[in-house]
Amino acid sequence: MTVLILTGEEDVTADMVVVHLNAASVPVVRLDPADLTAGVALSGEYVHGSFRGHLSSGGRLVSVNGLRSVWVRRPGTPAARAAQPSPWLTEEAAQALYGMLRGSGARWMNHPDAAQRARHKPWQLRLAQRSGLPVPATLITTFPQAARDFAERFPDLVVKPVSGAHPQEPPRAVPTSRVAPDTDFAAVAYGPTLLQRRIAKRADIRLTAVGGTLLAARKETPPDAHPDEIDVRFASAATPWLPAEIAPRVAAAVRAYLRSAELAYGAFDFAEDADGTWWFLECNQSGQFGFVEVETGQPIARTIAEWLARAAVPEDDPSGGRRTVAP
Amino acid sequence: MTVLILTGEEDVTADMVVVHLNAASVPVVRLDPADLTAGVALSGEYVHGSFRGHLSSGGRLVSVNGLRSVWVRRPGTPAARAAQPSPWLTEEAAQALYGMLRGSGARWMNHPDAAQRARHKPWQLRLAQRSGLPVPATLITTFPQAARDFAERFPDLVVKPVSGAHPQEPPRAVPTSRVAPDTDFAAVAYGPTLLQRRIAKRADIRLTAVGGTLLAARKETPPDAHPDEIDVRFASAATPWLPAEIAPRVAAAVRAYLRSAELAYGAFDFAEDADGTWWFLECNQSGQFGFVEVETGQPIARTIAEWLARAAVPEDDPSGGRRTVAP
Repeated sequence: MTVLILTGEEDVTADMVVVHLNAASVPVVRLDPADLTAGVALSGEYVHGSFRGHLSSGGRLVSVNGLRSVWVRRPGTPAARAAQPSPWLTEEAAQALYGMLRGSGARWMNHPDAAQRARHKPWQLRLAQRSGLPVPATLITTFPQAARDFAERFPDLVVKPVSGAHPQEPPRAVPTSRVAPDTDFAAVAYGPTLLQRRIAKRADIRLTAVGGTLLAARKETPPDAHPDEIDVRFASAATPWLPAEIAPRVAAAVRAYLRSAELAYGAFDFAEDADGTWWFLECNQSGQFGFVEVETGQPIARTIAEWLARAAVPEDDPSGGRRTVAP
Repeated sequence: MTVLILTGEEDVTADMVVVHLNAASVPVVRLDPADLTAGVALSGEYVHGSFRGHLSSGGRLVSVNGLRSVWVRRPGTPAARAAQPSPWLTEEAAQALYGMLRGSGARWMNHPDAAQRARHKPWQLRLAQRSGLPVPATLITTFPQAARDFAERFPDLVVKPVSGAHPQEPPRAVPTSRVAPDTDFAAVAYGPTLLQRRIAKRADIRLTAVGGTLLAARKETPPDAHPDEIDVRFASAATPWLPAEIAPRVAAAVRAYLRSAELAYGAFDFAEDADGTWWFLECNQSGQFGFVEVETGQPIARTIAEWLARAAVPEDDPSGGRRTVAP
């Protein structure tokens, strides 16, 4: 039973996981959907009520029915590097590859449906609330008056994109920024705006969830940090990421979130306030973990490898292997 | 409790359903996400562990928590008709609107995740097999030798796209065509190709499923039809669509398919052979039904209206209203 990793050629984070899979003698095939029809080939046959499928990459042939898990790491656009790329070829290649893999009994990290859903910030906020995680007061609106009312109730605000990264090529991260008290909210009418009560934080928390395993890291806010320094992605590296304990109540809420979201992997960002409360900011289903592992020494790559190496869901599982979160 | 219909302005099929909702005095709001920030506005507030959201369209305000159902008919690209459209605004508007709606307790026809998954033809074929529907022998491949072997075993073949419609603007339907016996399959290496055993059909079947209600229509193949006339979408209108009985075994298999696919609506296409067997060709989760209703008199629009009008899933339903297929 083989582990399939969908990612580009240069991916040191994937390399970290492959090292552990190799050490455990677990067969691995790594391929980039961008190489479809040039280096990567596929074939699937539906005859007499059953399915037999194969993928080939770099001369290695692997049976789709023989996959134990699929890690959707950083796959390229299907057939992007074909001899004659086109939107039509990309569509056909995407449907053929993912359509075939979706029909397999393999476990997914993460399943494409769960990944797609998990990208919606408003849905994240609602699920975090329902799971029992504290969520800072948040407004998403195109009504200027709603923004004004919210700013009166919560004068210390930040603004951030609803969707995450700006879709230019390459995508650009849009920093979370503080909103000045005298802001004119008229322009809110021209595009949905996300306003959130600023948490006066004493630390940033990154909680990495791999199946049922939760690993938290904490980066203290330097005492001389300017209150306008909101976004940890753009913050100074003055303080390191260090391993942190997870309160049982938080762990239970995070597990409830992952179960509902049907995610096998998630990178949660929290802001820790002066009382020690962890405020949910977001859960990135494809969040990087290399920097946390390097600074904290936490065995994230090994935990992912162990999750991927576990046995596949039986072919006749009625859920088709979609519900993949370990208890 | 309001029914929300996401579709463009000119949609006579939606009109057919709205007539029935109006007759039953069910409140309806119809909006096109393309009008976001110009005519359509939204606001959602996440405070103290709860959510309150509103949509406004044409001056009407509707509570997101007060939605009983969402019908994703033919929605435009979010914010496509904004004063200054851009990919970034579309992304933000899509996330805000669908992210908020995904967090509501409304029932979906169809849920966006289920709709996205249902578009994958290879996944459809596998699910049809598992549900107990007869599937014509099918090969999807980029290996010329696999195509040659398949053509030897099944010499009477058709070819069709893996993904459905060609993604030009407007999208172009690609007809299913017969494959000549002396075809050179070398070009298969340049793009995934779907080959399927041709069913010598005596009729086309369109089975429309709305929740638990199944309505089948049958269009007889004229005795003088040329065997190259494969695709009913391009066939002559010599014979009409007439209501047809559904064998209990087929009905059970179709219901199993819909349950696994988590679809509230699906338009199944079958080919009926000389023995009366219905061979599964595809299930289109957004298939048109107007032409069937007009020719057969089957009450599809009314059945959809009744499904949409049913009570919403309670807000604390653990599935978040995702499993929406009625038994």
